[in-house]
Amino acid sequence: MELKLYVDRLSQPSRAILIFCKANGIEFEEVKIDLAKHQHHSPEFAEVNPMKQVPAIAHGDFKLFESHAILIYLASAFPGVADHWYPADVHKRAKIHSVLDWHHSNLRVVQVIIVKCERIAVGYIFNSAIAIERGLPLNLQAAAKEEKLLSESLAKIESYWLQGDGPFLLGNEKPSIVDLSLVCEVMQPEAADESEHERILSPHKRILKWIEDTKNATTPYFDEIHSIMPLAREKIKELKVQASKP
Amino acid sequence: MELKLYVDRLSQPSRAILIFCKANGIEFEEVKIDLAKHQHHSPEFAEVNPMKQVPAIAHGDFKLFESHAILIYLASAFPGVADHWYPADVHKRAKIHSVLDWHHSNLRVVQVIIVKCERIAVGYIFNSAIAIERGLPLNLQAAAKEEKLLSESLAKIESYWLQGDGPFLLGNEKPSIVDLSLVCEVMQPEAADESEHERILSPHKRILKWIEDTKNATTPYFDEIHSIMPLAREKIKELKVQASKP
Repeated sequence: MELKLYVDRLSQPSRAILIFCKANGIEFEEVKIDLAKHQHHSPEFAEVNPMKQVPAIAHGDFKLFESHAILIYLASAFPGVADHWYPADVHKRAKIHSVLDWHHSNLRVVQVIIVKCERIAVGYIFNSAIAIERGLPLNLQAAAKEEKLLSESLAKIESYWLQGDGPFLLGNEKPSIVDLSLVCEVMQPEAADESEHERILSPHKRILKWIEDTKNATTPYFDEIHSIMPLAREKIKELKVQASKP
Repeated sequence: MELKLYVDRLSQPSRAILIFCKANGIEFEEVKIDLAKHQHHSPEFAEVNPMKQVPAIAHGDFKLFESHAILIYLASAFPGVADHWYPADVHKRAKIHSVLDWHHSNLRVVQVIIVKCERIAVGYIFNSAIAIERGLPLNLQAAAKEEKLLSESLAKIESYWLQGDGPFLLGNEKPSIVDLSLVCEVMQPEAADESEHERILSPHKRILKWIEDTKNATTPYFDEIHSIMPLAREKIKELKVQASKP
């Protein structure tokens, strides 16, 4: 049965799904939905996801959207996926769901806030995909607010979710779908500015090690999928130049 | 093994979990964490949920927070729960996850926006629990924004998630955990003002029928748990009087 991934590599949940499939040897066709060209608003894409967001998938006739639901589905429907990605044990699985839900209201919420509040300006630190998609002016105040939310979430990940013996979230010895989802989110500021990303992450040594461990566990696919970052930086630079013009 | 639910009935996800347990004959001890008295910030509760939010559970030594993760855990760990609440079928289950995740970024996000944006005023339409908890002044502009977000989400639920033959979300014949989670959220404005709640919901006939169907499927527990609403209205009234004073 054919698997199609409707994605834009500039979106962090799209990248998580691409890396997951590659790391697990799941064959797929990548269908690019170019956010900058508003392809997510096309009638064709509405047939796949009426909510008009990437990522979405079609597995034969079965269509699904929301990245966490997709990761869980792929880990469950493809028998070759190792148990550590989404453990069958009811207690381990419950903890995975807890982190995924927490993520929605923390790291991930920065995106949602900006979309829902319909702000006319976004910061460039975190929401580069949205900025590019909408051609929005950049705003330093919004960037400061985003940085504060990001730093708070990083501190919570370090002090709580990364406690334990293993190098991954929940103290696991091997990565799970939550590591992929959250690391791709944490990588997003790199799409805006490499030195800013380094500055924000540098106080968080445990986070830096976790990113490296997740990269290494999914090598070479993590870097391959994140090779989009320089392109994102180019687009963000263009937006900055536009924003600085009177 | 003893199950403890750490809840405040003024919080909509707390109510969903209470109704779920009662409707499925799951025995539990209800431990009230009074948001208005800031009991969620106590060191004792931090032992249960370091993120300091209700609901949370302890099942023997196993602790868990995030309401969707809790509902899934309860449906999986207690063998008496009927399959329709959280189907074992991988496709049906994936759709359940998709609605739960969607909920985080739509109906549910109104709460999150207000907490994260650290606004000093909230509307009274939707976020009565937060208003009561924080003793915040009420604000008509915020209420209008909340109502707009609520109406948009209700329209999407009607036009998409409630399509299909059955009376429940995803066209199901019997209720699932998503019906409980979303209906408890949609009921929240009733905690603020009954006539306002009626006014907002009245254009949405399909939603009204879905609420009734969910109530009937969980009778008498739905009404029993929602009997807290008049108390919430009293508290909201007090806040309104305070807010109107110069």
